[in-house]
Amino acid sequence: MDRVSDASSRPVATGLDPRIAARLRRDRDGLVAAVVRQHRTGEVLMLAWMDDEALHRTLSTGRATYWSRSRRRHWVKGETSGHHQYVRSVALDCDGDAVLVSVDQVGPACHTGAGSCFHDQLLGDRG
Amino acid sequence: MDRVSDASSRPVATGLDPRIAARLRRDRDGLVAAVVRQHRTGEVLMLAWMDDEALHRTLSTGRATYWSRSRRRHWVKGETSGHHQYVRSVALDCDGDAVLVSVDQVGPACHTGAGSCFHDQLLGDRG
Repeated sequence: MDRVSDASSRPVATGLDPRIAARLRRDRDGLVAAVVRQHRTGEVLMLAWMDDEALHRTLSTGRATYWSRSRRRHWVKGETSGHHQYVRSVALDCDGDAVLVSVDQVGPACHTGAGSCFHDQLLGDRG
Repeated sequence: MDRVSDASSRPVATGLDPRIAARLRRDRDGLVAAVVRQHRTGEVLMLAWMDDEALHRTLSTGRATYWSRSRRRHWVKGETSGHHQYVRSVALDCDGDAVLVSVDQVGPACHTGAGSCFHDQLLGDRG
């Protein structure tokens, strides 16, 4: 069983496939980055965080599940907003510190109502 | 202007526009996630990390510049491989902990030679 220890109240054991868990390179908080894109269009919707348990739940339930760094708990995307994410594919990157999650996004991805969370343009054209 | 100090040898002062710096929500290591996509196709290429100085250099030079968590130094994408990234746009997300960088990628993005770093499929179909 994978043990995730520390004082942050995250789960200490998960059902994540140990072959996958062994390939993860987590940050000091036990997290990997999750890049979320719209399956049909490829649009990048948001960036969230996953610990082992969030990745396990995402893979096993098909519903995108993350770790909230501010609220310090798991959350299923859409659990309050209804803007669910149905998972179509998940891929790990070459150094194990990020996953790319392709989803069918129901409604806007961003809590602001925008389609994507990346709407604060710092350089260049929108889109 | 760049100071390199502290235990992690990250800069403590940068030329980053303070109005942008004020909107960043950094992790414990002072970093935000950088999602990198191919400008023309929208393909997600890689996930890297930026401190304030890396973001400043990316915005001011137009060459994608990151913070290497393993090597603990800045790197300009392509500086050794020749696989440069010419920056077309940069957008910050709604909670300030990630940027979306659209680039013209020269050659493969991944050090393995793959077009994208996300080639370890955990669920679903490739692509």
